[in-house]
Parts: sequence; C-alpha cells; structure tokens
Amino acid sequence: MRILVQKFGGTSVADLTCMRQVQAKVEKALADGYKVVCVLSAMAGETNRLLTLAREWSSRPDPSEQDVLIATGEQVSVALFTMLLRDAGWKARSVLGFQMPMHTDNDYGKARIMNIDSDRLKQMLDEHEVLVAAGFQGCDECQRITTLGRGGSDTSAVALAAALEAERCEIYTDVEGVYTTDPNLCSRARKLDRVAYDEMLEMASMGAKVLQIRSVEFAKKYNVPVLVRSTFSDASGTLVTKEDPSMEEVKVSGIAYDKDQARVTLREVPDRPGVAAAIFGPLADAGILVDMIIQNVSREGRTDMTFTVSRSDLERALEILQSVAKEIEANDLIHDLGVCKVSVIGVGMRNHSGVAGTAFRALTAENINIMMISTSEIKISCVIEEKYLELAVRTLHDAFELDKQSAED
Amino acid sequence: MRILVQKFGGTSVADLTCMRQVQAKVEKALADGYKVVCVLSAMAGETNRLLTLAREWSSRPDPSEQDVLIATGEQVSVALFTMLLRDAGWKARSVLGFQMPMHTDNDYGKARIMNIDSDRLKQMLDEHEVLVAAGFQGCDECQRITTLGRGGSDTSAVALAAALEAERCEIYTDVEGVYTTDPNLCSRARKLDRVAYDEMLEMASMGAKVLQIRSVEFAKKYNVPVLVRSTFSDASGTLVTKEDPSMEEVKVSGIAYDKDQARVTLREVPDRPGVAAAIFGPLADAGILVDMIIQNVSREGRTDMTFTVSRSDLERALEILQSVAKEIEANDLIHDLGVCKVSVIGVGMRNHSGVAGTAFRALTAENINIMMISTSEIKISCVIEEKYLELAVRTLHDAFELDKQSAED
Repeated sequence: MRILVQKFGGTSVADLTCMRQVQAKVEKALADGYKVVCVLSAMAGETNRLLTLAREWSSRPDPSEQDVLIATGEQVSVALFTMLLRDAGWKARSVLGFQMPMHTDNDYGKARIMNIDSDRLKQMLDEHEVLVAAGFQGCDECQRITTLGRGGSDTSAVALAAALEAERCEIYTDVEGVYTTDPNLCSRARKLDRVAYDEMLEMASMGAKVLQIRSVEFAKKYNVPVLVRSTFSDASGTLVTKEDPSMEEVKVSGIAYDKDQARVTLREVPDRPGVAAAIFGPLADAGILVDMIIQNVSREGRTDMTFTVSRSDLERALEILQSVAKEIEANDLIHDLGVCKVSVIGVGMRNHSGVAGTAFRALTAENINIMMISTSEIKISCVIEEKYLELAVRTLHDAFELDKQSAED
Repeated sequence: MRILVQKFGGTSVADLTCMRQVQAKVEKALADGYKVVCVLSAMAGETNRLLTLAREWSSRPDPSEQDVLIATGEQVSVALFTMLLRDAGWKARSVLGFQMPMHTDNDYGKARIMNIDSDRLKQMLDEHEVLVAAGFQGCDECQRITTLGRGGSDTSAVALAAALEAERCEIYTDVEGVYTTDPNLCSRARKLDRVAYDEMLEMASMGAKVLQIRSVEFAKKYNVPVLVRSTFSDASGTLVTKEDPSMEEVKVSGIAYDKDQARVTLREVPDRPGVAAAIFGPLADAGILVDMIIQNVSREGRTDMTFTVSRSDLERALEILQSVAKEIEANDLIHDLGVCKVSVIGVGMRNHSGVAGTAFRALTAENINIMMISTSEIKISCVIEEKYLELAVRTLHDAFELDKQSAED
C-alpha cells in the first residue's frame, strides 16, 4: 500500500472554491495510485473566531474547555471536505483526533503527541481510498480533547506520515516552497529544491513561517520526507529531507532573520562560580527562553554578561533581573530593543571553512556593526542594529551568491 | 448521591445573557445539594447554519459526515458553558457523546440510543459537581459520531436521567409548561401541574412542541419524572409522570390539534380479502405514515376507503395510489387538503363514559361537521374542515371546563 499524507492549511480550505483546488490535489495523488491521508486545518479565521468567543465568555478560559471549543474548527473542515469527496464517488471518511486515536499528553492548548494507533488507521485505509484527518487535535489518556498549539496541523501530518510509513508528507500552503531568504525583504530570493532537516529547523526557529518547528523535529526523528508546495499552483515545491553528500557541496542554503529580539546586559558582574546559574536559573523558572549568551573575558574580577530574549518576555525578564542584579552585586542592568538577528545557514558549513569570514567581511563592508556572534555547526548568527536588517539580509544573500542555482540543483 | 438532570434548549443557550440564566438554574440545584448533569443543545440557529453550510457544499450531504458537522454545535455550547461554571469556581467538565459514551445505532441523522455507560458517568460525577453534557449526539460501535434527530437533546437528557437513576429530569424551555391546549389558539388555556406519560405522548404526536415524542417514550419506559419548565421564570412547570389514581378523576387533560393532515379516499373499492394490504402495503414500503383509516360498510360488494396522511407525503401517496387504484379496480381517487384533526386527551377517559358524547355534542352545536372519528383508550380524534380548527379547539376546551382548576390540582 503506497500512502501519501497531504496537509492543507487554513487558507487552502477557506471556502468551497479553495477546497476544489484541494480536491484536485487529492485526486491527482489517487490517480497516481496512492492511498491518501488528507490532513486539514480549520477554515481560515475560524480558530481566531472561536478564541475570541472564548474570551468574550471568560477572562481566562479554562484550557481544556478551550480545546473542546477550538477543535470544532477542524471538525467542520473535515466533514465538509469529506462530503465533497464522497459526492465525487471516492471512498472517503473523516477521522477526528480521538478516532485515530492521536494520543497526546494533557497539556491542553499545547499538547505533545505520545503515540498514534497505526493499526487502526491502516485498517481504515484498507477500507477507504482517502482518510480526511482533523489536524491540530488529539486526545489524552482520559479521552479528553487536546490541541497541539498553533501550527499543530503540520505536526499532525508529519506524525501521521511517520506512523503510517507514508512515502512522503506534502505540506500545502500559500507559498511555493522554502526560499533562500524572505522574498519580501530580498527580491533575489530563490526557491530551494531541497533543504536538510537541520537547515529547516534553523530557519523555522528564526521565524520562517513555512513549517512549524515541531513538525520538522518530528520529520527528522522519523526520517519523513516533507514536500512543501503551493495549493494554488503546480510548482514542484521544496523537499525537506535528510542530508546527503551533494547537499554538503553547497556552503550556504539560506539567510534567516529574527526581529523578535531584545538585548539585556548585566554590567560588571563578579566573575565567580555560580553566577551564570544565579542569572539564568530564575529566568528559566519563569519560562523565559534565553537565546544568545555572551560573557566577555573578565577584567579585575568582573565581567559583562549579555544575552537576548524575546521582546514579549523583556518586561518580565527585567523584573526578575533587578533582584538578581542586587543579589549577585552586578553594577548595572541595561537593555536595548533596537536589535535583530541575522543568520547564515547551511549544512555545507561543516566541511567548508571561510563562511564566517565571508559573512563578517560582507557586513563590515557595509559598515554594519556586529554586536553579538554565536555559531553552531550549521549556522552563524549575528545580532545587529535593527535598522540594518534589510541591508544585512541582502548583503549576505549576495555574498553567498544565493540567487544563483548551485551545481547540484 | 442525589442527581438532577437539567436540559436547556437552543433559545436558553442563545447567548451569554441567556447562559447566565442557565447558570442560575444549575447553581440553584447545586445549592439544593444535587450533583447536576446539565444537557445542552446547540445555540439557537447554529444547527440550521451548519445544515445550510452542508447543503452549499453538497446537494445530498453524506449523512455520517453531516453528523460530524452538526455535532460541533453542541460541542461549542458545552465548552463555553463549562468555562462559565469553572470561572465561578465549580468543579465542572464538558462531556461529549463519545466520552459518555452514549452508544447508538448507526442510522446517521436519526440514530437511536442503544446504551449509556453509567459506570463511567458516575465516576465522572464522583470527581465533579457538574457534568455539562452535549445533547443530540452519540457514537456508534465504530466510535463514529451520530446525532439523534431534531429535538434529540430531550431524549439525551431523559436517557441520561434513566442511566444515572436521577431523581428527576428537568426540561427547560421558553414556555412555562404543558398547557390544556395551545395558548395561541385559546386564551383560556391553562398550565397543567401534572400530566401522564400517555397523555403527553398523545399531545406530542399531535404536534405539541414542548417535548420530543421519543423522549416521552423513554421517560415512560424507564419511569423518569420529567419536569417541563421555563429558563426565564421561576414558575413551577408541569410534571410529566406515571399515572396515579388522582389523575383518573380528571376526565380530560387537554385538547390537541394537528394541521398537517390530508385526506385521501379510494371510492368504490371491491370489498374482498387483501384489498387493505394492496393499498397500505405500498404506502408503508414508501415510508408514508398513514394516520386515521376508515372503511365504510360495504354496499353492493364495494366500499369507500378513507384515510389521512401528512401533507408533505400527499403527492407521493397519490402517485402510488393511482397505480394501486387500477390494480384493485377502485372507481375513483379523491383527496382533500382542507382538513385538520382535533383530539380530546385524558387518561381519565378509561374510567369515565360520556366523553365522546360530550365532544360530539359540543362540535355539533357549533355546526362543525365531523368527517372522520378515531378513538383510543385515552383519546378521541375528529377530522374536521380546517376552517373550523380554532372554533373546535375553543369549543372543546369550554365543553370540558379545562380553564378551571380541577379538584386534585
């Protein structure tokens, strides 16, 4: 049994006209001899409508009941789309989260998938040509409805593809694939034919909205090939896949950026064991994610500790750090909202030296001051002044000649 | 554990203001020491909105998928109302059909309840003060969602009351109870304090919209006391209950009517064995419900066969009867849409003679011609010309002095 999982987001199922396009994609896969598991999101705007309703009724809606409420969005989508398929003569049925069942933990609103009963789904696939599965939703061990958090339908789709050992998971969206950088910032951005899981993870964590980060982690873990493509065209899309040697011939795959950065510095912190724990422990306890951390070499037994947090967390972080600063006897606490992060990403970096040098030289040539640097095996990130964001992205895109098709493409 | 089931219809859960009234009713029961199972319908208009959506997408929506679609209506109601209760500090949770589970057959759109897992529900009641149960929905043995048909929430509520051995099932609606007749037709109609299951069944089958007929059958079968009352007042309502001797002191409880009647006559049918089967067999096969049947005494080996059907079935009935008429050599097929049915209902009739006589005399005194008569143990029905409907209802109401409180009330 050749199985294909196809996932369609909210804009793809917005109305009957869009759903006809979805139907065409499903029928193409059926004509190619696949059994299809079609994962749908709620119709565009529906989840927000339901969340607004919840907030009209309750200042702090109970998370488990909110999940019961918003899970209706996907339920409506799958019922309507299955009607279309059945009218067209296909053996199709809808499958809700509890029917799969897609078992999750009970962290309502952002539940994590524990396991999927693949035997039951395979039996349904034996009896049907298409399963129309509700994305975003699951159920906990008490059979209560859960949801996976924003963008969770991507994760549903990849998890179903893994459980069913599908040939591929196709994520249909309103863009044609993954680009070398944001086409809105850089007109020379080019669609990639292939991108490695790790590259995609770095791009997703930088705010590229094509795929939800958890779905990429899932795909990498279970080695599910994910094809990102458009519902509204026949373009070939971008295949997110495991690395292969040819990918490593390309030094750099893309330039990502993240505007949601705020920089915080604790000045003249006494340089003694336990200081880092004293600073980052309370932040972690408060659920504040710290991104880059830089500690300068110490001078006269004191050092500056600089790091970045998400802008929405800044206020809470400063509150916590004010008492921390007293406790550890730091001399000052300063912050800066006018910063952003640009990153150069590529699995090929592992085997090519000189990427960092090229990046730094290119930025310097444009007089862009690099405030912080962090590197990983496949990424170089720089914090710079926010006003230079677009210039930096274009400069780096040009420096690595990303507008040009590479040899292996 | 004292358990009360309270059911609220669509107008009672139409918006936040209405739901606050519902909350007050539930909190009153909690203050009285009950554990409460609160059964909700979809918000007013929601089921129709979803059905319209289905028909926009499909000329003949698949019944099982339509159930998946419209079951979201109750799901939204229970989630929102549970949020209210939890905000007020009550231990409450929503319970969907598949979570009860309310097992039904798989006759989608009009499924029948097979059984309810009362152990599981009782366990939930041990852990909560209020269960907010979705009415109208269940699941079949494959865990697919089913719905019970229009007004099915009444049946859900009575079935839950039976399964949980609740003290009482309260059906909240927008009227204050069951009346001696339709107050819109007869200003002297009086609210009844009590009515027997069988009387309520006769009234419901005549189109009285207070309770769905299946819910009354259920209540009678499991001897569940049902209290019909208003969400929007503190009036005491009408108790639907098993007969007791005091009820039989009252000859007549109410006057019901049914405008949805069409009369059909096959004239000069040869009076031989098998003729009735030849006429009513094909109608039954076509799912057409025949109400009253009258066969005149035969003259010269031929008889007239007159009966009534629902107006919406008339066209199909005539089609079938045209060929039947040929086959059995009837001489004519005529029909009449200008008729209606009025009924005098009361369990006391069993032990009181003279009810029929009083009814016929009253109608005759107003020159209302009785076209057909049928009687049961607790009912006398007359088909009359439709233009006399209101006059007949008022005349019968007066003749049995239904505006006057009876001794036992």
